[in-house]
Amino acid sequence: MHGKFITIEGGEGVGKSTQIGRLKDFVAGQGVEVVVTREPGGTHRAERIRELLLETSDEPMPSTCELLLMFAARSTHLENVIQPALARGACVICDRFTDATYAYQGGGRNLSTENIATLERMVQGTLRPDLTLLLDAPLDISAARASARNTAAGTSDRFEQERRDFFERVRAAYLDRARQEPKRFAVIDATESLEAVTVAIQQAIAERLLKLSPAPRS
Amino acid sequence: MHGKFITIEGGEGVGKSTQIGRLKDFVAGQGVEVVVTREPGGTHRAERIRELLLETSDEPMPSTCELLLMFAARSTHLENVIQPALARGACVICDRFTDATYAYQGGGRNLSTENIATLERMVQGTLRPDLTLLLDAPLDISAARASARNTAAGTSDRFEQERRDFFERVRAAYLDRARQEPKRFAVIDATESLEAVTVAIQQAIAERLLKLSPAPRS
Repeated sequence: MHGKFITIEGGEGVGKSTQIGRLKDFVAGQGVEVVVTREPGGTHRAERIRELLLETSDEPMPSTCELLLMFAARSTHLENVIQPALARGACVICDRFTDATYAYQGGGRNLSTENIATLERMVQGTLRPDLTLLLDAPLDISAARASARNTAAGTSDRFEQERRDFFERVRAAYLDRARQEPKRFAVIDATESLEAVTVAIQQAIAERLLKLSPAPRS
Repeated sequence: MHGKFITIEGGEGVGKSTQIGRLKDFVAGQGVEVVVTREPGGTHRAERIRELLLETSDEPMPSTCELLLMFAARSTHLENVIQPALARGACVICDRFTDATYAYQGGGRNLSTENIATLERMVQGTLRPDLTLLLDAPLDISAARASARNTAAGTSDRFEQERRDFFERVRAAYLDRARQEPKRFAVIDATESLEAVTVAIQQAIAERLLKLSPAPRS
């Protein structure tokens, strides 16, 4: 008996946080335990790895170091939070997962997809999300929202400081992943109203997962 | 023009620190720039990863997480300290390196040697130490020294809390590595007096490296 594993993906400013809150209520309303978590992070140790990943520093961050830290955080997150939750039948909603690694480190940093796939097998074995909701918006829209948020916060992290072409590659890599795995991915148009996006997400869940209650899984 | 890359390996309590101090003076006495560093660590970021690796925690540490953190620390250490030093002709003396990963995570934790080799290629490419000094002692001797040190410090880290069979596997894995690569390894009997060990290390350097000044390297 395993719960469903749903991941939410997308670049900066596509409205993930708002939709994750609504999705949590939607799933809980069906009487299913929901665990909402995020990557990189989700455990005490993984959140400390996240700090290392996001902070700006005088010490240049090798792309391979960034990639290994992402999977180190994922390893402890999987073993201590995600897998136990799925095993007891909970629905896990994760704000970014391995598709983000393919998008940011693969697409954004131009790291070898083969190396990412090797680490994915090493850390996850055969575990993959049951459904991945990709909130997609053209960069002009998402970047404006993200920029407004960063200006309001008065700060930006090591990823937010990247240039436009980095985020263009991230978006292209996400869309490429979705094309490669159409059964797992639902691409949601994040330029629509909040309400319309919420409805599209609930429709995707109804179509793709049928029901959220635990079912036997091989 | 590259400097020489010397690594010092061995379990707890084999006397690495004392010998590294003497080796540094010996190399510097030949008019060569010496960089002494250690793993995991050697840069600000890598030392913070080291803290995550050594600290005891209520959150179980997956062995794969430990392995990935080791190589993440190594990646930033190589790019920001070791490779620049070798490139300018310095002799780098590193307290533990990838052989320690084969010994502790491979031997001690029973992690797949194949996965370690995959990460070694991903992070190091073809870079390997020019000479590895393995200070070897039976567990009864090294454990007594390490235990006395931990008692004096009033504390022990996550590795020092391992049981005897863990350290037996670490020692066996180190000796196995040395048998596989006899040209790179010099196995030093660490049960001898400090003076005798120092002489054995200097002899190994004279025999294996011939001279420490930079020489062209393919």
